[in-house]
Amino acid sequence: MTYCVAINTEQGLVFCSDSRTNAGFDNISIYSKMHTFVWPGERTFALLSAGNLATTQSVVKRLWSDIENAAKINLRNAPNMQTASDYIAGVSSEVQKQQTNRDNSSTNFEATFIFGGQIGTDKPETLLIYPQGNYIHESDEHPFMQIGEVKYGKPILDRVIKRSTPLTHAARCALVSMNSTTRSNLTVGPPIDLLIYKKDSLDFGQRMTLTENDPFAKELSEAWSLGLVQALDNLPRFPWE
Amino acid sequence: MTYCVAINTEQGLVFCSDSRTNAGFDNISIYSKMHTFVWPGERTFALLSAGNLATTQSVVKRLWSDIENAAKINLRNAPNMQTASDYIAGVSSEVQKQQTNRDNSSTNFEATFIFGGQIGTDKPETLLIYPQGNYIHESDEHPFMQIGEVKYGKPILDRVIKRSTPLTHAARCALVSMNSTTRSNLTVGPPIDLLIYKKDSLDFGQRMTLTENDPFAKELSEAWSLGLVQALDNLPRFPWE
Repeated sequence: MTYCVAINTEQGLVFCSDSRTNAGFDNISIYSKMHTFVWPGERTFALLSAGNLATTQSVVKRLWSDIENAAKINLRNAPNMQTASDYIAGVSSEVQKQQTNRDNSSTNFEATFIFGGQIGTDKPETLLIYPQGNYIHESDEHPFMQIGEVKYGKPILDRVIKRSTPLTHAARCALVSMNSTTRSNLTVGPPIDLLIYKKDSLDFGQRMTLTENDPFAKELSEAWSLGLVQALDNLPRFPWE
Repeated sequence: MTYCVAINTEQGLVFCSDSRTNAGFDNISIYSKMHTFVWPGERTFALLSAGNLATTQSVVKRLWSDIENAAKINLRNAPNMQTASDYIAGVSSEVQKQQTNRDNSSTNFEATFIFGGQIGTDKPETLLIYPQGNYIHESDEHPFMQIGEVKYGKPILDRVIKRSTPLTHAARCALVSMNSTTRSNLTVGPPIDLLIYKKDSLDFGQRMTLTENDPFAKELSEAWSLGLVQALDNLPRFPWE
């Protein structure tokens, strides 16, 4: 499985993804699920992927080869995020159809993506692209998107994340949401990719890859556990206590 | 759906369950999923139920009628928690089989239970009874049991709950785990039943039913949200901040 989350705040975008893939319980590997496409000063995109690894790899390869071959529509020339999302959805559908046609069993070739970024002076956007090729947009009421094992890390996002949340604060919240997921579900695991993109910077942003023993990741996890214990200690007592 | 959790600490047992049932999205009702069987000074049990409501109601009715009819094995005379669990598992299997035999479609009649309590001077125990009739026991490494929508509320339990957690502290943690679930998933909802059983008391314990607008439940939810924001504020800053 996988867990990826993207947050769209007034100050910019946060992307966070795990790196564990498994084909059955005894075939576990590490693959980054964060793919970036950046033309500094012009446009910057991040694509987070969940689902069948062969499908997501094929999709990413196709996106790059379309850029190299200057295809009619590609990530380099798409006029807006909607066109770019339609394009990625189309590529994903094609790849899934191709894999399904080759298959004689009932393998699941589906893939789900979070696509986000900024084109020129347009507003930064994040979209969730379903395996079926349709997609949804984040909103003021719901400024974050999740794919994969979304349930463990959702409560903290539901309680904390707003459009107005400061960018680095949102990034720490994404890491906490990820950390809660990796602690509770073995199919989601490090290294954790984190990308913080400041609105209008049109650059590569701040990217961190946190391995299992990364001192910052450990410090964060311990500080969070301590904070939770304190939060519990400060809860109101029962009427009879 | 449903969310129920039981915690077995050195000081006693905590049971917590929601009350929302749904047969499809447009048929939502309120049914308590916490059933208690208490003979003060002798034995005390709580049964939390998830799954098909007709099945769980039939099982609970059967348990009561077996007590009234002084059946050869019933909750009143079972010599230990293992025998009582085997008995409940048997009743559940029988009810499920009966419902399935009557059905011409492929309805899911499964039910899952958390069964806990104390018999005389035996140690208090909690067990999770699967629809298949087998069951597992909590352990020193894993002193809590969950059924239903378990993922949202698992991270806080994973981080905080130990055998040595004080009883009321564990109860507050169960309420937080439940609150996180009801906030993130509409199929789990109030009123919330909470039962705190002090080891060796062999009584009804402290029971609370928290409705949606209960002042204590609101105070708890707000204090927890505040505590989380503070915990986030106290996290280590990124190296470049």
